[in-house]
Amino acid sequence: MKNLAAENVKIKDGFWRYYMDLNRSSVVKNVYERFKETGRFDALKCNWREGMPNKPHIYWDSDVVKWIEGVAYMIEEAPAPEWEKLADEMIDDICRNQRADGYFNSYYLTIEPSKIFTDRDCHELYCLGHSIEAAIAYHKATGKDKYLNCVLKNVDMVYRVFVEEGSAAFVTPGHEEIELALLKLYNYLGNEKHLALAKFFIDQRGSNDKEAKWDQIQSNVPLREINEAVGHSVRACYLYTAMKMLANVDGDKELADACDRIFDNIVNCKMAVTGGVGSDHSGERFSYAYDLPNSDTYNETCAAIALAFFANAMQEGRADSRYGDVIERVLYNGFISGLSLDGEKFFYTNPLEIDRKKYARSTYQPICQRVKVFGCSCCPPNVVRTLASIPRYMYTLDGDNIYCNQFATSEAKLVIGGKDAVIKQTTNYPYDGKVTFEYEGEPTSLYVRIPEWCVEYEGETENGYARFDLAGGDKITVELPMEVHFIEANPYAQDNSGRYAVQRGPVVYCLEELDNGENLRDITLIENGNIEVKPEEGIPAPVIYVDACRRPKTERLYSLKNDNCVPFRARLIPYFAFANREESDMLVWTMVK
Amino acid sequence: MKNLAAENVKIKDGFWRYYMDLNRSSVVKNVYERFKETGRFDALKCNWREGMPNKPHIYWDSDVVKWIEGVAYMIEEAPAPEWEKLADEMIDDICRNQRADGYFNSYYLTIEPSKIFTDRDCHELYCLGHSIEAAIAYHKATGKDKYLNCVLKNVDMVYRVFVEEGSAAFVTPGHEEIELALLKLYNYLGNEKHLALAKFFIDQRGSNDKEAKWDQIQSNVPLREINEAVGHSVRACYLYTAMKMLANVDGDKELADACDRIFDNIVNCKMAVTGGVGSDHSGERFSYAYDLPNSDTYNETCAAIALAFFANAMQEGRADSRYGDVIERVLYNGFISGLSLDGEKFFYTNPLEIDRKKYARSTYQPICQRVKVFGCSCCPPNVVRTLASIPRYMYTLDGDNIYCNQFATSEAKLVIGGKDAVIKQTTNYPYDGKVTFEYEGEPTSLYVRIPEWCVEYEGETENGYARFDLAGGDKITVELPMEVHFIEANPYAQDNSGRYAVQRGPVVYCLEELDNGENLRDITLIENGNIEVKPEEGIPAPVIYVDACRRPKTERLYSLKNDNCVPFRARLIPYFAFANREESDMLVWTMVK
Repeated sequence: MKNLAAENVKIKDGFWRYYMDLNRSSVVKNVYERFKETGRFDALKCNWREGMPNKPHIYWDSDVVKWIEGVAYMIEEAPAPEWEKLADEMIDDICRNQRADGYFNSYYLTIEPSKIFTDRDCHELYCLGHSIEAAIAYHKATGKDKYLNCVLKNVDMVYRVFVEEGSAAFVTPGHEEIELALLKLYNYLGNEKHLALAKFFIDQRGSNDKEAKWDQIQSNVPLREINEAVGHSVRACYLYTAMKMLANVDGDKELADACDRIFDNIVNCKMAVTGGVGSDHSGERFSYAYDLPNSDTYNETCAAIALAFFANAMQEGRADSRYGDVIERVLYNGFISGLSLDGEKFFYTNPLEIDRKKYARSTYQPICQRVKVFGCSCCPPNVVRTLASIPRYMYTLDGDNIYCNQFATSEAKLVIGGKDAVIKQTTNYPYDGKVTFEYEGEPTSLYVRIPEWCVEYEGETENGYARFDLAGGDKITVELPMEVHFIEANPYAQDNSGRYAVQRGPVVYCLEELDNGENLRDITLIENGNIEVKPEEGIPAPVIYVDACRRPKTERLYSLKNDNCVPFRARLIPYFAFANREESDMLVWTMVK
Repeated sequence: MKNLAAENVKIKDGFWRYYMDLNRSSVVKNVYERFKETGRFDALKCNWREGMPNKPHIYWDSDVVKWIEGVAYMIEEAPAPEWEKLADEMIDDICRNQRADGYFNSYYLTIEPSKIFTDRDCHELYCLGHSIEAAIAYHKATGKDKYLNCVLKNVDMVYRVFVEEGSAAFVTPGHEEIELALLKLYNYLGNEKHLALAKFFIDQRGSNDKEAKWDQIQSNVPLREINEAVGHSVRACYLYTAMKMLANVDGDKELADACDRIFDNIVNCKMAVTGGVGSDHSGERFSYAYDLPNSDTYNETCAAIALAFFANAMQEGRADSRYGDVIERVLYNGFISGLSLDGEKFFYTNPLEIDRKKYARSTYQPICQRVKVFGCSCCPPNVVRTLASIPRYMYTLDGDNIYCNQFATSEAKLVIGGKDAVIKQTTNYPYDGKVTFEYEGEPTSLYVRIPEWCVEYEGETENGYARFDLAGGDKITVELPMEVHFIEANPYAQDNSGRYAVQRGPVVYCLEELDNGENLRDITLIENGNIEVKPEEGIPAPVIYVDACRRPKTERLYSLKNDNCVPFRARLIPYFAFANREESDMLVWTMVK
């Protein structure tokens, strides 16, 4: 199974077109401007000196190159000369300042050259990983090889230092990322050395006695023995992605089995209903099983993206709709919630509840409104590159069989039976679940993912996919009834006992105080009341109106149980659209009767 | 209205007799031994030198003298020569080391004599306040005047330094307590100077521009302007008690009105269903209105005691059953939960939920089992003195009218119509609510508090009291139907939305994991199921068995709402009895259907 490459899939209309256009018209520019202001691009010139503003930071290169990677995906779709010119300038800076031995990290070269590869926790290999991803994308999009060659030289240097000489002060990186990037590189160029380096980092991690055993960075046990997702959630999911990519390449069954266990553990025990992961804000980490708090959860935007990567690697390993289900849950909820509707501002963490009064007296005080830039600004450029590469999640190919994993009005070019083929999708998703496919090409089988939320679908499925045998000229329509569902969490998820999430299709909903008044936790939705689903200007998914009630105000603090509940009409908006007006409390898990 | 003094009321049997006997047989001894071990008594000798173990602390004197106060109340009830001898020795140490000008604080005299009265936050006046209370109690119980004279000399010194000379580095104490103690002293000896000193501290607090405005220590506004209970909850409630005692003495209406506002604010917005107050663990303070968290609440045992003091001062000001209701709620729940059933161990904080997994990953990690001593050990001796003085809460007198505020099998001696009278109470409270009164004496009116929980009571009431006109030889019985109630919190108390507390009579109940299995928050009690109330060996209140159900275990993290609920029989124990076995999760607020 392989993803049908993003460049072969054009998204034409609908939800993701909205966001991809926003990315092109606004997000990429906003991230550029904030990074420019904060000196992240200038840092590549390696001429910062003490006393100057904007002192470079160890992870700044990763911010910049994720932006370049995003620009590359945009160029792949349509020319973007303004951004390409800027990217070229940045690449020139990088290449000019690369050390003769291949090393590049603007912070270390400028500020602490004597400390190169002395501190496991200092993100040098993390930055290189992102550089590899960016260089591949840029090469593929523009055909220019300057950046790729620069990065290849750096990779050679890392191979020598880490594998051949063992001369770094550590064996594996504190922040994983390079592993998946090296596997991308191997898949792109086929150089066995890159595979070997990825395998080295994966094999050594948690196994090498020179390194501290620490679950925060997934170094507590050899990776083939992992049963549970642990530690910093972005690092973890980047690593798990790499593990599965490696297993997909070399057939390592032990590694594949470990990935199966971890995926099950995340999806069955550690994932918010929004697809957010890393619920323990202290350490930005996976918590214990079923610890899914709401107002003080972390759920970093980057972690949602990393989980989508992991699910995608799993999907490339095996046809099972669960992987596409997770990708969909993440993309429509905990990922896109990281971006404001105007494309200008970002969330780093994505809570499932905002309780401003509680925040005001807490030691952990997450922000209640998105902002334009963070000191540690990994998420904004991650949004840029992920939005620009949404088409990659649409299809996988297993020989001549086509798997449709995600839904969007789109046109995809493929080769089926050795000949060019085209598959078009037309849908109003996520407004409704009717999806029409038109196919031109040699006979094939189309497997359409029946989403887990679509419990009303009555057709047969194989591994969660409905199969359609197609010949050229065929047109079929799949109806995915899109009802408003009330979702309950596992009884072990104690924070949500007695509470339900509202979900319609892939979209999870929330209540905002601005629409529903104060004391959101005291609102009860009426399950069998009048439910309206309405499109709304400015939000690319419908809003929902539901009969609801709330207890009347009383003077008394404690009263005998009574069932007084004053009716009102609740307005639920898509979770991803929360915090796009003035500050407001917000709640996902609500009472239902 | 005046409390009928504790020495005139003998509790003969039942709940409080159980605890008063435990106090005498166990608690007083356990506190003594721990304080002896930790050097608190030896500190009074003022001979600690650098390098010796057990360095004295600024608040140790208060721990010791609260213990002496408790011993005094015990002696008042029945001789306790062993403890009296030890108290005499401590008093000898204090008096011998008192400075010529009257000052005594073992820490400052021993370690930092140059810093006396230089730091508002260093508890010198707090310790003196407790010394005053102890000295009054000891004088009253034993007739010995040595300690009282010693303390009076110290009070004279404080009057001079603070009122006449203004030579201390601060105007009012950082930790209130001395104010209520001075009013006790004035009520005991009638010396106007003591009243003036109390009034000075109350008048200056929040009014004197020399002092920082800080709500944590109730110094943000002049006290007559307070609308809301704020800051450190023990300090606050000691202060509010003093304010009301002063208003009771001098008729200061502005102060009395402020107390009314504060009392309403606490009882309507800031008190746990257990009577615990101070829900914000950071700062051990009152939080914003309706912020009543469960697992991370603070609810210090001392704060519960202090709230009972405040309610008692309110009760001495006006006949209103609300005050006795609060005292009862506190005493049977959030106060007595501070003590283990064997009288050996204490809670400093009294959570309404224990979630050990959550604690393990939190920065705030309250203990899950009581311990024998704390570094800051204010609560244990506060339990000793409060248990020993339970009889003081039983009756108030308004001229010849008798108000019965609390229920216990007991015998009280009074003077009615100028002649000796006796009122006997017989009851199984809190097993049932039948209370029989037998009266001998001149004609009187007996007002019996009809508790707020007794919604089934159908008789007439005045200010919440049922009135009975009694003549000598009369015997009357009041039936207070004691049903199991499900209590809901105000809709603004968001932490308990959709949840209910189980209360029967004055006793609030809880679920322990040891009885009910894991995932307590997922348990639903069946409102109209079979409910059994059973006495149980070792707990001085009944346990309750209720039909309940819990959702079945599932593999999936998220599922469509379904109403599967597996029946079981839940066992609820009195809240005060939680954590008396091995470690266990615990929950007060549960679901009910």
